[in-house]
Amino acid sequence: MTLIFLLFAFLLSTTISHVNARDFCVADLKGALTSAGYPCKSLESIKLEDFVFSNFTVGTPNQLKMAFTPAFVEQLPALNGLGFGMARVELEEGGVVPIHTHVDATEVIIPTGGSFTIGFISSDNKVYMKTISEGNIFVIPKGLLHFGLNAGKGKHSAVYVFSSEHRSLQVVDLALFGSDLDSNIIAKTTFLDIEQIKKLKAVFKGSG
Amino acid sequence: MTLIFLLFAFLLSTTISHVNARDFCVADLKGALTSAGYPCKSLESIKLEDFVFSNFTVGTPNQLKMAFTPAFVEQLPALNGLGFGMARVELEEGGVVPIHTHVDATEVIIPTGGSFTIGFISSDNKVYMKTISEGNIFVIPKGLLHFGLNAGKGKHSAVYVFSSEHRSLQVVDLALFGSDLDSNIIAKTTFLDIEQIKKLKAVFKGSG
Amino acid sequence: MTLIFLLFAFLLSTTISHVNARDFCVADLKGALTSAGYPCKSLESIKLEDFVFSNFTVGTPNQLKMAFTPAFVEQLPALNGLGFGMARVELEEGGVVPIHTHVDATEVIIPTGGSFTIGFISSDNKVYMKTISEGNIFVIPKGLLHFGLNAGKGKHSAVYVFSSEHRSLQVVDLALFGSDLDSNIIAKTTFLDIEQIKKLKAVFKGSG
Amino acid sequence: MTLIFLLFAFLLSTTISHVNARDFCVADLKGALTSAGYPCKSLESIKLEDFVFSNFTVGTPNQLKMAFTPAFVEQLPALNGLGFGMARVELEEGGVVPIHTHVDATEVIIPTGGSFTIGFISSDNKVYMKTISEGNIFVIPKGLLHFGLNAGKGKHSAVYVFSSEHRSLQVVDLALFGSDLDSNIIAKTTFLDIEQIKKLKAVFKGSG
Amino acid sequence: MTLIFLLFAFLLSTTISHVNARDFCVADLKGALTSAGYPCKSLESIKLEDFVFSNFTVGTPNQLKMAFTPAFVEQLPALNGLGFGMARVELEEGGVVPIHTHVDATEVIIPTGGSFTIGFISSDNKVYMKTISEGNIFVIPKGLLHFGLNAGKGKHSAVYVFSSEHRSLQVVDLALFGSDLDSNIIAKTTFLDIEQIKKLKAVFKGSG
Amino acid sequence: MTLIFLLFAFLLSTTISHVNARDFCVADLKGALTSAGYPCKSLESIKLEDFVFSNFTVGTPNQLKMAFTPAFVEQLPALNGLGFGMARVELEEGGVVPIHTHVDATEVIIPTGGSFTIGFISSDNKVYMKTISEGNIFVIPKGLLHFGLNAGKGKHSAVYVFSSEHRSLQVVDLALFGSDLDSNIIAKTTFLDIEQIKKLKAVFKGSG
Repeated sequence: MTLIFLLFAFLLSTTISHVNARDFCVADLKGALTSAGYPCKSLESIKLEDFVFSNFTVGTPNQLKMAFTPAFVEQLPALNGLGFGMARVELEEGGVVPIHTHVDATEVIIPTGGSFTIGFISSDNKVYMKTISEGNIFVIPKGLLHFGLNAGKGKHSAVYVFSSEHRSLQVVDLALFGSDLDSNIIAKTTFLDIEQIKKLKAVFKGSG
Repeated sequence: MTLIFLLFAFLLSTTISHVNARDFCVADLKGALTSAGYPCKSLESIKLEDFVFSNFTVGTPNQLKMAFTPAFVEQLPALNGLGFGMARVELEEGGVVPIHTHVDATEVIIPTGGSFTIGFISSDNKVYMKTISEGNIFVIPKGLLHFGLNAGKGKHSAVYVFSSEHRSLQVVDLALFGSDLDSNIIAKTTFLDIEQIKKLKAVFKGSG
Repeated sequence: MTLIFLLFAFLLSTTISHVNARDFCVADLKGALTSAGYPCKSLESIKLEDFVFSNFTVGTPNQLKMAFTPAFVEQLPALNGLGFGMARVELEEGGVVPIHTHVDATEVIIPTGGSFTIGFISSDNKVYMKTISEGNIFVIPKGLLHFGLNAGKGKHSAVYVFSSEHRSLQVVDLALFGSDLDSNIIAKTTFLDIEQIKKLKAVFKGSG
Repeated sequence: MTLIFLLFAFLLSTTISHVNARDFCVADLKGALTSAGYPCKSLESIKLEDFVFSNFTVGTPNQLKMAFTPAFVEQLPALNGLGFGMARVELEEGGVVPIHTHVDATEVIIPTGGSFTIGFISSDNKVYMKTISEGNIFVIPKGLLHFGLNAGKGKHSAVYVFSSEHRSLQVVDLALFGSDLDSNIIAKTTFLDIEQIKKLKAVFKGSG
Repeated sequence: MTLIFLLFAFLLSTTISHVNARDFCVADLKGALTSAGYPCKSLESIKLEDFVFSNFTVGTPNQLKMAFTPAFVEQLPALNGLGFGMARVELEEGGVVPIHTHVDATEVIIPTGGSFTIGFISSDNKVYMKTISEGNIFVIPKGLLHFGLNAGKGKHSAVYVFSSEHRSLQVVDLALFGSDLDSNIIAKTTFLDIEQIKKLKAVFKGSG
Repeated sequence: MTLIFLLFAFLLSTTISHVNARDFCVADLKGALTSAGYPCKSLESIKLEDFVFSNFTVGTPNQLKMAFTPAFVEQLPALNGLGFGMARVELEEGGVVPIHTHVDATEVIIPTGGSFTIGFISSDNKVYMKTISEGNIFVIPKGLLHFGLNAGKGKHSAVYVFSSEHRSLQVVDLALFGSDLDSNIIAKTTFLDIEQIKKLKAVFKGSG
């Protein structure tokens, strides 16, 4: 009976190998991006490392006192086509996350230390805001304006999950005051005073 | 041979009738909404009117000199599950469309009269802006900040197409200054001056 | 504080740039077409013109007195992956749209002038037909036989929306009488008389 | 160690039970149909019979000498949401399948006996036609006109697979000549002679 | 000008409110589950708490020394339709996660303390295994056999992300030895010795 | 009038040709695989043979007395993107199908001869098992453990349908005993005795 199994194992393993790529579609990051993600790497070129990201460590804070370490498809090619990505965030005491949206991703915040005041505004102009800490999870629906502050004591840290393996980011201040959008058009379409616009353009290096 | 066909026609028509609902899934607007849309109306209750919307006419202008006539799934139940909806827009000379986003829909503008200066800002803070008129079509990607002005002579009119049969709308001014979001939080997360915020809250009736 | 923002703006804008392609997936029309559409153009090669189509103008009528100006993904690469496309149609008095289907697209007709008698037939052989004009919208479900006539006075014009950025078209007469399908097979499977078939094959240049 | 496992098994089985419904979404055929299919039956009401269809047997031939036994979601509720369904077909010698389309389903024909001449016409009016028998598989793309004949000796039988668990059917003759579509409109939009139309309306019991 | 804005704000807010539900589709957990998730709660009944889960805390270890705290759609209704869910896991020193699969979900493991030896086996019988700790992320593709051990010093903790808001779980030992599957059939289809099967059935309380 | 039609046919056929590729997306098997399947072949290179598979014949039995003839996208490129594939199976008397899962595909079994005892185990460890023969159809949900035996008289044959045009296969014995997974880890995570593991590793040629 052993002979049978040896042959069986051989036959099965040879017939299986060519269909294996559909267990997963690890990104070939050099291939052409489509709306369905990157092409799949060939079976032969898949390695253990495609499934492991090893630098999900504490990042370097920027001038807003926030460190952001992404784990998207570029860092972790096995996320290709899965529809979610992650990030690790540290925000020092007093740190601020300016109002922004993610065009393509719902965001989930899982605090691992400190506290964080997080809010979003829905289309009917209601504010959903709460101060969260370890043991809480907060969901920010896709595409809505949201913001955050570390208004507590000490550093805040969190794991973020996004419903996209490659989320985009639109910061309202940068869009308005860091672009070359004409100040008169900004004034007309935001109702902000022209002096306010010019003041923030100086800060965010916008032109126009 | 005629007899055969009579019987054939009879047999086929009876067997077909019960599967017919999958030609289309006309919305049962009283059913429970899911992320896949409304449930399908039963075959027996479908009428010609489910496929026709008869009030796609010139609307009444609001105080911003804009008339907006929607043709979404509520107006035209046959759009259920199709992933697009339409609107008819008239904008008087000097009229303004304040900066806003559509969380769930790309927007396509097809001018039918007058001219319209339309722009959007991408995530990397580039401005895509153009004055369009009949013969042009302009595409505004989903979720990005955009705005418009009738800076030309006379009334502008257009047909809009959205990649959702039920698009939502977030107006930045209303979200910030028409909600009850605390003014200090707005100041910290937008970098606007507190006086500017209070001035606009008075206009847009926000509290906090 | 200005210094902080300068640095902040710089840091954010550099980290954002590489993820920007997911705001939209503008078609690289030279790339390989998949069932999810064309690959996305690289960020560097995206231009304002990718979002604007400038020749959505009155077309040249064909011998059936119909002018058809498409705005599909080939004309407007920003439509890639969105699942809708548009066309502009003018149909002269007495003009006819022969019975046909769109395999892959629901069609919405938005008249902008004149009147149009439009109908489709559902799987259970019911006829949904109506004469429409400006102010009406008519929906023709995907894949069903439909037809139209300008039975009114003067020219009819309309904007069409399709639930595909690249719709196909099967005209029944061309399929049957403009192809090389054997006349005997046509007779057996349509129950048309052989003389009728040969007469129309002469008109539509079919063989067999 | 046994004790541990007993407890383990107990704990796991209780925590698992409430999430089990996502192994499958067996159709609750009395629930409201949506474009995503029927609602899922509750876990408690699922039975072995939901996964088995026991009447996939030789059917009764209709007047066109064809027997058609469906195995769609109504017969086999476990197909809910899977996007495919099956049928068993027997076609006697000389039997004909009139020209028709399936709006929502690609069709695959797997002959199990006899021979079958099957063809479809693509949008550019090419005919793809072949006589097939056991050992062949033929694919008919969604929504295209197709037809079949048993032009061989003896009975033909086949298993059909459709890319829909609930496929619809539009027979061209029934749509045109079995409906109440006005004969003059048929003539104008099909270019058929009015005598031909009236002759077939008499056969297929159409009015108008 | 103030008057204009007051009116504008009023008009816009009234027209917006009825379409707001599409910002998100918070689960109505009492509604009928479909393959597209739960129906959406009505706008009026949505509360801040729908977006916040407040018991994502350290769980009670089971007899396998593992504590598992889920944050799926039942705990956090805003996850409805998003395609991901989370869990918090603590595994004591020497703890074991038996071989199992998740039918419907890729799993991502983000260690927050201690170390964890995690592995999966692909369809071509390759083993992908690694000992991970804070700073690593590991991806386990959907549906593949996988297992884990805390072979290090001290407690291991982690955040898990699943590509389903409602993941299922099939433990091989429970399926084989905790069910009523006949021992002879197990022997024939697993090639295990009958004594081994009976020994484990005693442990896992299986019958047959 | 004939002249008109000649011109009409000519005009239409030229405008149609370039959009034809969306009738179907026949796989270009040399193109890059994505999670949406293969790229589409160009219109010019599509042939009748892309829609026909001609070797769906009785296969050669392996050492487990099973012959398996696949008709997946590689054999039948027109299946690309359709989400289903087929196979033809013959299983001799006494033949066994070892316990396995298909990560990506629900499986439907349509017996064409003999009898087959087929079972699957759900996540809550219930066994769904039945002996089926011609006239029955059995559905095995995606990703669940299942097995089969020809416990009847004579050969069993069947047509299989999978909800993937490229299904994968994970055989539990090969994963555990035909891989290089360390025997101690197998013992800990399966609770099998180390002697049993070593015995089966000898059979299935595993190492470690």
